[in-house]
Amino acid sequence: MEESAIKVTAICGSLRKASIHHGLIRSAIDLSVPGMSIEYVDISSLPMLNTDLEIDDEFPPKVEAFRQKILQSDCFLFASPEYNYTVTAPQKNAIDWASRLPNVWADKAAAVVSAGGSFGGGLSQYSLRQSGVYLDLHFINKPEFYLNAFEDPAKFDDDGNLIDDEAKERLRSVLLALKAFTLRLRGPK
Amino acid sequence: MEESAIKVTAICGSLRKASIHHGLIRSAIDLSVPGMSIEYVDISSLPMLNTDLEIDDEFPPKVEAFRQKILQSDCFLFASPEYNYTVTAPQKNAIDWASRLPNVWADKAAAVVSAGGSFGGGLSQYSLRQSGVYLDLHFINKPEFYLNAFEDPAKFDDDGNLIDDEAKERLRSVLLALKAFTLRLRGPK
Amino acid sequence: MEESAIKVTAICGSLRKASIHHGLIRSAIDLSVPGMSIEYVDISSLPMLNTDLEIDDEFPPKVEAFRQKILQSDCFLFASPEYNYTVTAPQKNAIDWASRLPNVWADKAAAVVSAGGSFGGGLSQYSLRQSGVYLDLHFINKPEFYLNAFEDPAKFDDDGNLIDDEAKERLRSVLLALKAFTLRLRGPK
Amino acid sequence: MEESAIKVTAICGSLRKASIHHGLIRSAIDLSVPGMSIEYVDISSLPMLNTDLEIDDEFPPKVEAFRQKILQSDCFLFASPEYNYTVTAPQKNAIDWASRLPNVWADKAAAVVSAGGSFGGGLSQYSLRQSGVYLDLHFINKPEFYLNAFEDPAKFDDDGNLIDDEAKERLRSVLLALKAFTLRLRGPK
Repeated sequence: MEESAIKVTAICGSLRKASIHHGLIRSAIDLSVPGMSIEYVDISSLPMLNTDLEIDDEFPPKVEAFRQKILQSDCFLFASPEYNYTVTAPQKNAIDWASRLPNVWADKAAAVVSAGGSFGGGLSQYSLRQSGVYLDLHFINKPEFYLNAFEDPAKFDDDGNLIDDEAKERLRSVLLALKAFTLRLRGPK
Repeated sequence: MEESAIKVTAICGSLRKASIHHGLIRSAIDLSVPGMSIEYVDISSLPMLNTDLEIDDEFPPKVEAFRQKILQSDCFLFASPEYNYTVTAPQKNAIDWASRLPNVWADKAAAVVSAGGSFGGGLSQYSLRQSGVYLDLHFINKPEFYLNAFEDPAKFDDDGNLIDDEAKERLRSVLLALKAFTLRLRGPK
Repeated sequence: MEESAIKVTAICGSLRKASIHHGLIRSAIDLSVPGMSIEYVDISSLPMLNTDLEIDDEFPPKVEAFRQKILQSDCFLFASPEYNYTVTAPQKNAIDWASRLPNVWADKAAAVVSAGGSFGGGLSQYSLRQSGVYLDLHFINKPEFYLNAFEDPAKFDDDGNLIDDEAKERLRSVLLALKAFTLRLRGPK
Repeated sequence: MEESAIKVTAICGSLRKASIHHGLIRSAIDLSVPGMSIEYVDISSLPMLNTDLEIDDEFPPKVEAFRQKILQSDCFLFASPEYNYTVTAPQKNAIDWASRLPNVWADKAAAVVSAGGSFGGGLSQYSLRQSGVYLDLHFINKPEFYLNAFEDPAKFDDDGNLIDDEAKERLRSVLLALKAFTLRLRGPK
């Protein structure tokens, strides 16, 4: 009997329609890694974090729905742009809502990818990893995925689709490492 | 003739009504440091950052109004809670909107204060300072202001008002340092 | 037949004789957690990192001996003081020598503990964790161990021995988490 | 009467003879920016930090000599390689010795440059800037100087000399910004 696929929730830190980070997630889904099922979860309609919105110990409905998605995931793929040397507000917002007690990120594996100028978004990754200590996320260390989006040849088309084969292969290796680490963390039977 | 007061814009990273970070800002205003005029600017109604909202090179009206406030300030006071070992989403959102070109934070002085458990919010401060390099903000180094909000005796009342005299004096010394650094950065005449 | 104990190498970031970080390691050893064998490895005699000292692809003898210790370990316990908001030079020196190719830290579990003023050494921990991404170390997330060494009642005696029972219990829980994570990373059989 | 030149002490985080970071410092000196006098100070003979070496409140002679150099400087230029995503041990060692009370770095301007793979050493810079808060150093924000040392065309020759004209001009603009910020911090007269 086949084991069920690992459930990966993919989160995009940019809300732009043509975001290259959406493109990274679409590409990750298209790669169809065997044994992984990647679902993109939209975070654009979450209200801005304000714990006054938690009434009678209940979260707003959209927050609750998001938290359920996170809770039911085996692991996470963050496509995390770098704005001002750290993560974006929408991404932080999603992270913080799901971290409200009970923290639904806890004890799961994660990977982060980014694209951008110069560092390719790298500084957002280290900031996210620091949050991950508190969230109790287990990030894979290797391979790290940065992509300088503005160097020739073009890495993305005008709609934000990843069109670079080498980058796709690097993205595949991230997914394979995430899958392996997720399985490994299940520990000895 | 008296020189005009330094204009300080105060930004609170929490949207909660009874936030102790609002309390820190109210306390800073109440301290009435001579030569400083502190104005609290609400960031709760800014839309979540999405550059698709910039149409015909114009910002949404609430964003534009916020950016004008920042542009007209001489320096900044951030009351910056720590969520998941970095700054909050609302604060990051305000920072990012004002950093859109032309970056209206550029070349101004800033200070950051925080309160919270254990580290007293310290990790949000280092994350904010890292953003400050890109934003071209000049943070004062000393004194640093952290406040363990949960140790006895009580530091805040139930409405989030700072009620601890020692903390108020430490807050005053932050304001004096911010004032001095703002003046100093005007350079030799 | 009993499984052999997990080999833990403990590294102290301070070279002072009466260092409280040595005290933390002595205390960890004294706790005698079943199934763990903790060995303190002295790093004080390593030369300052200079790759000109690698002659004919050989490391200096003391470096080579240290690297062998690291290679033969199952996991690591860092007692990491915070100097100037990051790790100490001796600790960074040991880390860097063992990271020279082939990187002998790779793919092993680790924990970090610290004591000190205010943050209890916390900022050194996040800096070390960032290095850990490159080193491919898998740090446990929880529990985190900081200890404010200067609050009453006394946590250490004049020789740097940990004398606080609550801190010892917290230290034990770190060791148990490190043991569990080390075993878990062995993955499904 | 001419004002005396600003005294810049340059510190190299690598001890290798052919270090490209030494090359950056040599290049900075060769640029002969008017009004700046840059002196390279060797840190290779400082003992590894151990406060047990401070006897009768005296520093070891080499440490004392180094501290005097720092004290007499107007500002600093760090050539800071990135090892394992943070600063090198020799650089941290020099920083820590000079931070022992009285902290001789205090209230001076600084700039940091680096070269390397991928990020061009960028992560060492943010780590150093974080230390700078405690050290009370005022780092310039702009321009930031990273150099991908391994991209074509060659940026350095085999002896570590900077041979790229564009990089030299970027280095010059760092020096000019450091000079301007040092003067500006002298404040209004």
